Amino acid sequence: MSKLKDISWIAADWGTSNLRVWALDQNGNIVKTINQGKGMSALLPNEFEPYFMGLIEKWLPEKTEMECPVVICGMAGAKTGWKEASYMEAPCSPINPDKTTLVQTMDQRISVRILPGIMQASPSDVMRGEETQIAGYLSKKPNFDGVICLPGTHTKWVHISAGEIISFRTFMTGEIFQLLSEYSILKNSVKSDKIDTDSFLQAFEDTYSNPALLSSKLFGIRATDLLENIPTKLLKAKLSGYLIGSELAGSKSYWLGRDIVMIGNDNLCDLYEKALKKLGLNISLENTQDITLNGLKQAYFNR
Amino acid sequence: MSKLKDISWIAADWGTSNLRVWALDQNGNIVKTINQGKGMSALLPNEFEPYFMGLIEKWLPEKTEMECPVVICGMAGAKTGWKEASYMEAPCSPINPDKTTLVQTMDQRISVRILPGIMQASPSDVMRGEETQIAGYLSKKPNFDGVICLPGTHTKWVHISAGEIISFRTFMTGEIFQLLSEYSILKNSVKSDKIDTDSFLQAFEDTYSNPALLSSKLFGIRATDLLENIPTKLLKAKLSGYLIGSELAGSKSYWLGRDIVMIGNDNLCDLYEKALKKLGLNISLENTQDITLNGLKQAYFNR
Repeated sequence: MSKLKDISWIAADWGTSNLRVWALDQNGNIVKTINQGKGMSALLPNEFEPYFMGLIEKWLPEKTEMECPVVICGMAGAKTGWKEASYMEAPCSPINPDKTTLVQTMDQRISVRILPGIMQASPSDVMRGEETQIAGYLSKKPNFDGVICLPGTHTKWVHISAGEIISFRTFMTGEIFQLLSEYSILKNSVKSDKIDTDSFLQAFEDTYSNPALLSSKLFGIRATDLLENIPTKLLKAKLSGYLIGSELAGSKSYWLGRDIVMIGNDNLCDLYEKALKKLGLNISLENTQDITLNGLKQAYFNR
Repeated sequence: MSKLKDISWIAADWGTSNLRVWALDQNGNIVKTINQGKGMSALLPNEFEPYFMGLIEKWLPEKTEMECPVVICGMAGAKTGWKEASYMEAPCSPINPDKTTLVQTMDQRISVRILPGIMQASPSDVMRGEETQIAGYLSKKPNFDGVICLPGTHTKWVHISAGEIISFRTFMTGEIFQLLSEYSILKNSVKSDKIDTDSFLQAFEDTYSNPALLSSKLFGIRATDLLENIPTKLLKAKLSGYLIGSELAGSKSYWLGRDIVMIGNDNLCDLYEKALKKLGLNISLENTQDITLNGLKQAYFNR
């Protein structure tokens, strides 16, 4: 059904700032991959189809013979995305292939479905994309009972039991880190490619034990820079440590006494792991891309 | 000595984002006022004199007869300001007229002095401008023993005793509020000119009692906006309440059981006052401009 005869369906992880696409054969083996594309925030709703077709058209036959199924997770399903995909409410299974949203496309060679996000009524919370990673992990470990932490712009802590997302909590840690690094009075103090581990752990302990001092400790980075001659890699480590320390104090009810699986960017997971190890916890790390594709396969093969 | 014969000196409060100038007679009575000028962050060091002269030249004689003294407080004395004015170290008196920094000017009709900021070694902290407001308050109440709170971009809590600044602590609350309002995922959820008092107080209590949840509560504003149909004035109130709640938890060692004087912008002081009243505290409010000018007079008349 496609130009490249092995391709029988397409999977996509379409987040706020990045797009990753896989062309797969009928057994779920990867035939082609696109690792970097425009994220949801860079596109208007009517731009999604032409942009996506520009990337994948080479994989499709010239004439409509049979639709190529496309399964998408993530922010492409947000209100300002390609088409809004409704939420499922926790507690629930992370993926339900019956609840996908069909996108009407101009081009008849593709049949696009977007997976639902998950909402929680109280406390109010939402996720889009992480549920697919969780489904991917559960496809390997169906009996997992514990907590999955997904560090990122909006870090999620998710309590899993009996194959369901029981509850979750999002922290804006990553976004606040970015805002402070790029726009705040701290921006010149934290310009560094490196993060000093000792300074990170010390700062982490400061706000972990006293999270109310977060915004004061943050100003202290600027004051320290003005008054002392300290390398920026130490100050950047403090910024990261203060923010993660406060988050780990706030997420204690999630991680205390539990098995923790972490899914996310390597460098960021490394920092979380260092901090959690200080608290006596053991973490197992999962590769984000593998896990996400596993989740998309769950949605496709169980449809 | 000046064109306007009553003007015998000039006072200026030159902050990061605004400049206020007063022309005064020999008794400190106001002859002329400029309420809005470019702040420090809008000028390069060599632009300060021409910019300032452009504003005040009309007050000076055409030829040099006698220098007109100019006394400046605030961020004009920062490293990236007109000329760096060194810090005094707390504990210390808020103003010491012997420690001012003389600025070499091209124009000989003015003699410019910048007041020193105040630093604290541990925990690292700095202020520039607030010390002059404190001096202004102490000129009216020389025996004040208590805490002065100066809400703003970088809110200061200052412990005063025996006419000295004993210790102080800065919280980045105002700047984080601005960053989240303008650049974050919350920006569309908090676009409102109004702040709902009940929502503010409820949010304040949430993070006051559990400051570790700050960055999670902040994401909750976005989730609430997505899931419920709530007016933005309630969501903006939550943003403000969560940030101030966390700060008041962190500044408790300052305000607990003390008399509190508040100096700052009316709307912002009103929010702090509402929150502190909930905690059973009484606040007295001072007018920022009067207090600042009082402080600059202290520096001028005691030189």
